[in-house]
Amino acid sequence: MLPASDFTEQYESRINRPVLAKAADFQRQERLTHVIFAQQFDREMLDHLCSTASMIRQISRHRQGQDFLSGLLSHKRAMLYFTQASTRTFLSFMAACQILGMTCNEIRDPTTSSEFKGESPLDSMRMFSSYFDVVIMRSNMAKFAESCAYLMNELEAQGRRSVPVVNAGSGADEHPTQALLDIYTIQRSFEFTSQKDNARNSRFDQLRRRYPDLNKGLANKTYGFCGDVGRGRTVRSLTTLLALWEGVKFKFIYPDYDKLAPYQDMLARLEETGVHIEHAHSLPEVIDQLDMLYMTRIQHEHDTEADQQFFETFDATQFTLSTDLLPKMKEYCPILHPFPRNHEIPFDIDSDPRAMYFRQARNGMWIRAALLAHLFDVDGKIGAHYQKNYGV
Amino acid sequence: MLPASDFTEQYESRINRPVLAKAADFQRQERLTHVIFAQQFDREMLDHLCSTASMIRQISRHRQGQDFLSGLLSHKRAMLYFTQASTRTFLSFMAACQILGMTCNEIRDPTTSSEFKGESPLDSMRMFSSYFDVVIMRSNMAKFAESCAYLMNELEAQGRRSVPVVNAGSGADEHPTQALLDIYTIQRSFEFTSQKDNARNSRFDQLRRRYPDLNKGLANKTYGFCGDVGRGRTVRSLTTLLALWEGVKFKFIYPDYDKLAPYQDMLARLEETGVHIEHAHSLPEVIDQLDMLYMTRIQHEHDTEADQQFFETFDATQFTLSTDLLPKMKEYCPILHPFPRNHEIPFDIDSDPRAMYFRQARNGMWIRAALLAHLFDVDGKIGAHYQKNYGV
Amino acid sequence: MLPASDFTEQYESRINRPVLAKAADFQRQERLTHVIFAQQFDREMLDHLCSTASMIRQISRHRQGQDFLSGLLSHKRAMLYFTQASTRTFLSFMAACQILGMTCNEIRDPTTSSEFKGESPLDSMRMFSSYFDVVIMRSNMAKFAESCAYLMNELEAQGRRSVPVVNAGSGADEHPTQALLDIYTIQRSFEFTSQKDNARNSRFDQLRRRYPDLNKGLANKTYGFCGDVGRGRTVRSLTTLLALWEGVKFKFIYPDYDKLAPYQDMLARLEETGVHIEHAHSLPEVIDQLDMLYMTRIQHEHDTEADQQFFETFDATQFTLSTDLLPKMKEYCPILHPFPRNHEIPFDIDSDPRAMYFRQARNGMWIRAALLAHLFDVDGKIGAHYQKNYGV
Repeated sequence: MLPASDFTEQYESRINRPVLAKAADFQRQERLTHVIFAQQFDREMLDHLCSTASMIRQISRHRQGQDFLSGLLSHKRAMLYFTQASTRTFLSFMAACQILGMTCNEIRDPTTSSEFKGESPLDSMRMFSSYFDVVIMRSNMAKFAESCAYLMNELEAQGRRSVPVVNAGSGADEHPTQALLDIYTIQRSFEFTSQKDNARNSRFDQLRRRYPDLNKGLANKTYGFCGDVGRGRTVRSLTTLLALWEGVKFKFIYPDYDKLAPYQDMLARLEETGVHIEHAHSLPEVIDQLDMLYMTRIQHEHDTEADQQFFETFDATQFTLSTDLLPKMKEYCPILHPFPRNHEIPFDIDSDPRAMYFRQARNGMWIRAALLAHLFDVDGKIGAHYQKNYGV
Repeated sequence: MLPASDFTEQYESRINRPVLAKAADFQRQERLTHVIFAQQFDREMLDHLCSTASMIRQISRHRQGQDFLSGLLSHKRAMLYFTQASTRTFLSFMAACQILGMTCNEIRDPTTSSEFKGESPLDSMRMFSSYFDVVIMRSNMAKFAESCAYLMNELEAQGRRSVPVVNAGSGADEHPTQALLDIYTIQRSFEFTSQKDNARNSRFDQLRRRYPDLNKGLANKTYGFCGDVGRGRTVRSLTTLLALWEGVKFKFIYPDYDKLAPYQDMLARLEETGVHIEHAHSLPEVIDQLDMLYMTRIQHEHDTEADQQFFETFDATQFTLSTDLLPKMKEYCPILHPFPRNHEIPFDIDSDPRAMYFRQARNGMWIRAALLAHLFDVDGKIGAHYQKNYGV
Repeated sequence: MLPASDFTEQYESRINRPVLAKAADFQRQERLTHVIFAQQFDREMLDHLCSTASMIRQISRHRQGQDFLSGLLSHKRAMLYFTQASTRTFLSFMAACQILGMTCNEIRDPTTSSEFKGESPLDSMRMFSSYFDVVIMRSNMAKFAESCAYLMNELEAQGRRSVPVVNAGSGADEHPTQALLDIYTIQRSFEFTSQKDNARNSRFDQLRRRYPDLNKGLANKTYGFCGDVGRGRTVRSLTTLLALWEGVKFKFIYPDYDKLAPYQDMLARLEETGVHIEHAHSLPEVIDQLDMLYMTRIQHEHDTEADQQFFETFDATQFTLSTDLLPKMKEYCPILHPFPRNHEIPFDIDSDPRAMYFRQARNGMWIRAALLAHLFDVDGKIGAHYQKNYGV
C-alpha cells in the first residue's frame, strides 16, 4: 500500500529540479496551467493579474456587470479540497469562484481523508478531476499540490482528462495566492489615488508636496516586515515577488532571537537579486523610514519550551503597532497583515486610513477571481467587456 | 488578547439600552437593515412580511415564477455562520436564500471557531462582510449578533463596506425568525380558507355556523402554550408578537413546577400590554377553549438532579396531545410545535388537518425568503410581479 | 420515544414483501418515483438510462449544451443526506445534480444525526421534504431509504407534499446507483468503438478478426468477479442486473474461505435466472477466459481475529492484477473496480487502455444525472435536444 507521502517518491526527480525549471511544466506559452509556486509569477504576469482583478472589481459594481461575470464560468465546477483548515483562504476562493459563476464543491473536514485510509492521495485527486473542472487544494502534505500537477500533466499527455491544480497553501512550503493578494494590495496603495481626485488636485500631488521623491508603483520603496519573520511563509513568498521590482529595500524587524529572524537561505536568495536588506530589532526606531509596513503575528503554536522562556522576558511593545506610532509613519504607508492577528495591531488602529488589512481580504477575492479567469482563459473577455463599458 | 466575550464590553452601553431604543439602530426609515430582535417587528411590518411570503409562495408554483424569484438576488452571496448546531433553522435559511437565487456559503462546524482561537469574533465578522453580502448567524455567544450589527453600523458611518446581519438564534436570548414563522403559520390558519371554497360556500361560512363569534385574523383569540413554558425562547418571542393584536388571551399550560412556569419578567411585560393571561396545569381541562395550541417539548437537556426527581413523579399525560383529545378541540384550532418533538405529540396526530407543525417548516422557508427580500429591497419587485400576474 | 430503528416496525408489512411486489410502489406507469433497489431496473429502463446518460455526456461537451442542461432543473433543490461517509458517491451525485442545474444542500456530518437524538428519523425526512425537491440519502440504517419512500407515498395519498427518495447506499443491503454505473461502463465498453473508427475500418472489425465470435452488447459474455466476492454489496447488485441479459456467464474468483465466497442466497437467486456460474480460486488461471474483469478490495475492516489468521497465510498474488497478467487478457476486456483500491490493482495498470476504473467515476456522474432527469421527467427534453442537435 502506498503511504500518504509516497507520491513524492513517484515524482521525486521532478520535485528536485530548480524551481524555475519546474515552472515551465505549469504553463503553456504565456498562460498558467497550474498554480503551485509564487515564483511562477513574473512582473508581466503580476501586472496582468492585478489589472484583471481591478477590472473585475469595477465591473462587479453594477448588476449588469455581475451578471456578465457570473456567466463566464457558470458551466464549470470547482472542488475546494481543504484538508488543512484555513477558513479565510477557503472563503476567499469560494467567493472568487462564485463571482465568475462557478459551482463550488468542498471537502473541508480533515477527518474525511481518513476515509480514504490506505488509498493513495493521487487516487483521490483523480476522482476529483473526474467530477470537477479545477481543484483548489490546501493540504499539510508537502509537495502534494505539485505532485497532483505532475499527475494531471501525465494524464494530459495520454490524452486523458486533466484539470488545473491551484495550490492554496501546502504545508510549510508555499502559499502563492497569499503573496498575490499582498502584491495587489500594495499595488493599489501605491497608485496613490483618492475618490476626491480631480484634474486640478489629486492625492498624489498632495503627497508629492510632502514627499518630493515619491513615485507611483512598487519600485524604489522601502518595505518593512515586522514580527515573526522567520516562521510563517507569507514573508518568504512576498519578498520573492517584491524583489522583481527595481530598487526595493527590505527592512526586517524582529526580536533578537534566532527562530524569529529571516532564514539564511531566504536572505541569500534575495541578496542575489540585488535588493538592499537591513535588519532592526525595534519597530518604533525605524517606522518613519517605511513605505509599507507588513505586520505579522508571533506564531506561538510552534514554540518549544526554550522559546517560551525567551518570550517571558521579551518586550512585545517593540513589535506592536501602538497608536502613538501612527504620527511617525509616512502619511501613505499602507499597513498589511496576513491575519489572524493577536496583539500586534490593536483595534484602535482599524479606523486609520492606512490600515489595509481588512481590505486585503477583499483584494484576495478579486485577485483570486482574476487568477481563475486566467486559468480558464476568460480574462480576455473581461478585458474586452471592460474596454467596451469603461474604456476611455 | 480579546477574550471571546469581550465584544460585549466594546458595545456595552448600546447593549444596555431599552430594546425599542436599540431597534432604531437596525432600520432605516421603514426598512430593516439588520434583524436582531423579535421586537423590531411591528404590526405593519408583520403584515407586510406575511403578505410578501404568501406572494413568494404563490409565484414559486410555476417555473416562470421560480425563474423570476431566483433572478432577484442571484448577484448576492450569503454567509450562514452557524457555530451552534441547528439543522432545521440552517436548512430553512438555505432554502430561503436559494429561492431568491442567492449563492450560499456556510460555516457549520462548531470547532471551526477554535481555528480562530485568540482572534476576536468581530475580526471574523469583518472577514465575512468582506466576502459576502449578508451574514446569517447562529451563535451561543449572547449578544454576538447584536454586537456585529453595531460593528457594521460603525463601518457604514466610516464609509466602509457594511452588510446586513440576521440573527438566526443567539444563545438563550433571541430567535426572531422563529417567532416570525409562527406568526405566519397562525395568520394563514386564521384566514380559514379551503381549496374547495366557492362563491356560495366557504370553509369560513361553515365554521361560522358552528362558531358564530368567529372572526378572521389574529385578534380576539385564545392562544394556548403547553409544556415547558419557562425554558426555551420560542414562547417568549411569539407571545411578544401576538400581544400586538387586540383582545388576545394567553393560556399557559405547564406542570406545577417553577422552572417550567412562565418567567415573571415575561408575564409582567405581557400584562403591561393589556393581554389577558390565564394559567392551567392540565391540557385536557382547557383544550376546548383554545383557538390555537402551541405544544413544546420538555427541555430535559437543562435538567438538574432535582428536576430529574420531579420528572420521575410527573404526569406527562397532562401535557401530551393524545388522540382522544382531538374531538374536544375546536374544529379549526391549529396545532403548532417548534420541533423537534418527543412524546408530546404522537405520530397518530400527524394526519389530522389541524396539525400545522410540518407546514410550519415550509412556512419558515417562505417567511425567511420574504425577510431577505425586504432586507435587499426587492420586496417591491415581488409585489409588482404578483400584481401583474395574479392581481385582481 | 421512537428508537432510531423503529421506523422499520411502522412499515414492517411492506418491507417484508417480495422485492418485485415492492418495486411497484416506487414507480408510476413507466416512470420511477423513488430509487431504492437495483431490482427496480429492467432491461428497458437500463437501456433508456444508459442512452440518456450518453446524450447528456455528448451535449455537455459544448457550452451551449451545458447551458441547456443546467437550465433543466435550475428551479429544483436537492438534499444530499449522507450520514454514512462516502465521498465518492457523494461527489458524484453533487456533480450530477449540478450538471442539471440543481442547487445542492448537504448533511454530511455523521454526528449531526445526534442533534436529532430522540427524534424519529422520519421527522427529519419530513423536514427535508419540506425544504427540498429530492432527497438523496446514504445511511447505515437498514431499510431507512425504503421507509422514507413509503412515508412519501403516504403523504402523497393524503394530498400533501411528497418528493422522490434516492437510495445512495443503505447499510449493507443496497446500492442501486453503483450497479447502474457499472452497467453503463460495461455497456460503453462493449460498443467496441474508437475515435479512429471510419467507414472502412473500425475497432470492432479489428477485434472480430481476432475474436470471430465477438458481438456487441452485454449478452453472451463471461463476467469475472475477483476478490472479496462475499462481503460488499457491489457484486451482489451488479450480478442481479447483468443476469437480465441472455447467455451471460459469471466466474467468481475468490480465496477458498467461506466469508469471501459468494453467499448461497445470491447464487440460488442467480441460478434461477438461468445464468451459468463457475468458481475459481486463482485469477491467473482464468483471466484469459474473461470478457470483463471486476476487481474488488478485500474488506479487511470486517475481519475477525480468525479472519486475520487466515489472511496471514493467504496468497494475495492469486487475486491481484499484476502487469504480467495483462498480455493474457482479452484485448478488449474492461477492468472495473468500485474503488477505493488497495494492492489488488497496482498503479502500473492505470495507463492500460482496458483500465476503466477511473472512467467508471465519470460514468457514475453521467448515469446519475440521467437518473435524476428521469425522476423529474426531463429526459424527454434531453432526447429532443439531442435529436435536434446531433440526430442523424
